[in-house]
Amino acid sequence: MCKEYHDLNPHQRILMGPGPSNVDSRVLKAMATPLIGHLDPDFLEIMNETMELLRYVFGTENEMTIAMSGTGSSGMETCLVNLLEPGDKAVVGINGLFGQRMADIIGRCGAELIPVEAEWGKIIEPEDIEEALKNNPGVKLVCIVHAETSTGVRQPLKEIADIAHRFDALLVADTVTSLGGIPVELDKNGVDATYSGTQKCLSCPPGLSPVSFNEKAVKVLENRKSKVQSWYLDLTMIRNYWGKERFYHHTAPISMIYALREALRLVYEEGLEARYKRHLLNGGAFTTGIEAMGLELLVEEEYRLPELIAIKIPEGVEDSFVRSTLLNEFNIEIGGGLGELAGKLWRVGLMGVSSTKKNVYLCLTALESILSRTDFKVERGAAVAAAEEYYKNNS
Amino acid sequence: MCKEYHDLNPHQRILMGPGPSNVDSRVLKAMATPLIGHLDPDFLEIMNETMELLRYVFGTENEMTIAMSGTGSSGMETCLVNLLEPGDKAVVGINGLFGQRMADIIGRCGAELIPVEAEWGKIIEPEDIEEALKNNPGVKLVCIVHAETSTGVRQPLKEIADIAHRFDALLVADTVTSLGGIPVELDKNGVDATYSGTQKCLSCPPGLSPVSFNEKAVKVLENRKSKVQSWYLDLTMIRNYWGKERFYHHTAPISMIYALREALRLVYEEGLEARYKRHLLNGGAFTTGIEAMGLELLVEEEYRLPELIAIKIPEGVEDSFVRSTLLNEFNIEIGGGLGELAGKLWRVGLMGVSSTKKNVYLCLTALESILSRTDFKVERGAAVAAAEEYYKNNS
Repeated sequence: MCKEYHDLNPHQRILMGPGPSNVDSRVLKAMATPLIGHLDPDFLEIMNETMELLRYVFGTENEMTIAMSGTGSSGMETCLVNLLEPGDKAVVGINGLFGQRMADIIGRCGAELIPVEAEWGKIIEPEDIEEALKNNPGVKLVCIVHAETSTGVRQPLKEIADIAHRFDALLVADTVTSLGGIPVELDKNGVDATYSGTQKCLSCPPGLSPVSFNEKAVKVLENRKSKVQSWYLDLTMIRNYWGKERFYHHTAPISMIYALREALRLVYEEGLEARYKRHLLNGGAFTTGIEAMGLELLVEEEYRLPELIAIKIPEGVEDSFVRSTLLNEFNIEIGGGLGELAGKLWRVGLMGVSSTKKNVYLCLTALESILSRTDFKVERGAAVAAAEEYYKNNS
Repeated sequence: MCKEYHDLNPHQRILMGPGPSNVDSRVLKAMATPLIGHLDPDFLEIMNETMELLRYVFGTENEMTIAMSGTGSSGMETCLVNLLEPGDKAVVGINGLFGQRMADIIGRCGAELIPVEAEWGKIIEPEDIEEALKNNPGVKLVCIVHAETSTGVRQPLKEIADIAHRFDALLVADTVTSLGGIPVELDKNGVDATYSGTQKCLSCPPGLSPVSFNEKAVKVLENRKSKVQSWYLDLTMIRNYWGKERFYHHTAPISMIYALREALRLVYEEGLEARYKRHLLNGGAFTTGIEAMGLELLVEEEYRLPELIAIKIPEGVEDSFVRSTLLNEFNIEIGGGLGELAGKLWRVGLMGVSSTKKNVYLCLTALESILSRTDFKVERGAAVAAAEEYYKNNS
């Protein structure tokens, strides 16, 4: 080979897709801290602090609150392979891609899948979960997506948790896109096990999946009859590395833990209440602007996530033209639709560091400019004016 | 909570354990590059270059040469869950912890395990593999550890590959601790599938596992009758993200890929030949010094890894006293023994950036200083003098 490989120099993007979000320079700096060993006493202290801070954002006292060494989907698989054994029954709410993914993994666990479906863009109705539990005695898990990244739907958790518990099932919630953006409150909501991601509202690079199990879930783990099918994600062993025993399991991704600790420290400094308020405010201003532009939103207001907004692509407007122009002309990344909504949806993220007034104005302005080059009729300036009004009334 | 969380400021360690090794500041800097999306055209180019550079260090033309989004053990699981189906037979060479780990995972795949054992510290004899294949018709995989991290044994691959192929089995090799330190040469050696780690001789932070499958292995993957039991590690899907299709599977750990590309670029700039020579030279000088100090090595010279040296702990010397003094007084991390060798072994790594003359001298000097405080008799200055002589004769 005699090819030359240049210095890394990607474009400086404004990340307003469904994740990763932009990352604070303090997190980048922390990530670049020189390495120490995964059994170094200094590192064990860093792990302890990371667990404490994770408990804070999750709103939980769960001792088993750790970061799995993979991205969000590895956390999904962690919850399912550790809690399910062949033949177990699991109810899954499917109203988007990530519910589908849970269903796929449940099948790979040899468990019996009981799907409860809803239209993409709607919530899963608690009574449908109840119905499924009535019709299928002995269900072990009810699995639900708190913030469906493929549609921008916010699923209320408490009522479904109560139903699950009445039927002696555990509630597993996907909090990948909610953690750090809207209240997750595991203990108050009655969530028994959860997994999340780092690259959404925590504004940390992707590479880890925070996972939390309460005592009931830990008991299920301890009472397993069969080995967990994944060695890499086996919590019966991994808990002894994050726990007091500090048994070596695999080499932790040191630099990613550095980054996560710093990202969590930033959340802690801002405070959860202020952070949720910021996400709500910028999300509200943005959706107000989008509607003022004459665009339609997928999700009704009550269940709309402030950190991930799904916009219907208007008739006659070409998805790829708009997104590639946003990227090439403005360095703004937004997401397209997934699965059955591919080509029909734009997904705009206002997550963590990316959730700012500056980004709201810029994205509205850029979208307006690009749409004005299509057949879609757009009144220039209306979007930003509406957002401005929203900020005035809600700040 | 009102606890204060301080700036990250761990000790500056000299990493001479079994990994992670120290990381070049260029890699840390690259890792701290601002994030871009996992489907950004800039990122796709970075992925392509990473694949090219991985092929270079692996010594392969294999198209499917990618980095899995987990640490080395996730790569081990990737190879096994993708190539095995329930009921398949796999022969595994077990002469250390990582052979044991493969055996454990093979069991979790529902495959039939055929162990071929050797004493820890010895190689697996090719004739024992042949015997196992003769006695067990229809074996699908032969699994072997190229560089056994728990013992420092270098396992020759070619002869075992030839035997496996004569019996129509694929050879899977663990190259976690060999890649970038000693020749791996997948294509020349006849390795059909392999996994590695980044935090050993590539001197990149832990968090990714380079994996390579040749066409025969890809065919086995394509002809599976059952779904891969792990969704997160399912190469039938992941290959479409790293391949031309660029289908979204999971969010890649962007920053880790930045780091890996830069670490590989450093390997490429040094050149593989020069890099292997450096590892041999420093490993040779260190072992010469260790023997001059009167310490014994676990592995006989022919099969000794230059990048990971296993030293028997002399009678009456306390493992934890020596290792903690090395860490606290000199900021040097070395490893202890694993599994049945716990308390009986020190493992010293001279990997990647950590493989330097400076580290050889420092570690010998520090060890000598600490051992002189125990009952072990050590002639002051002999170790460094012997190492110096070795450098003179071999540079």
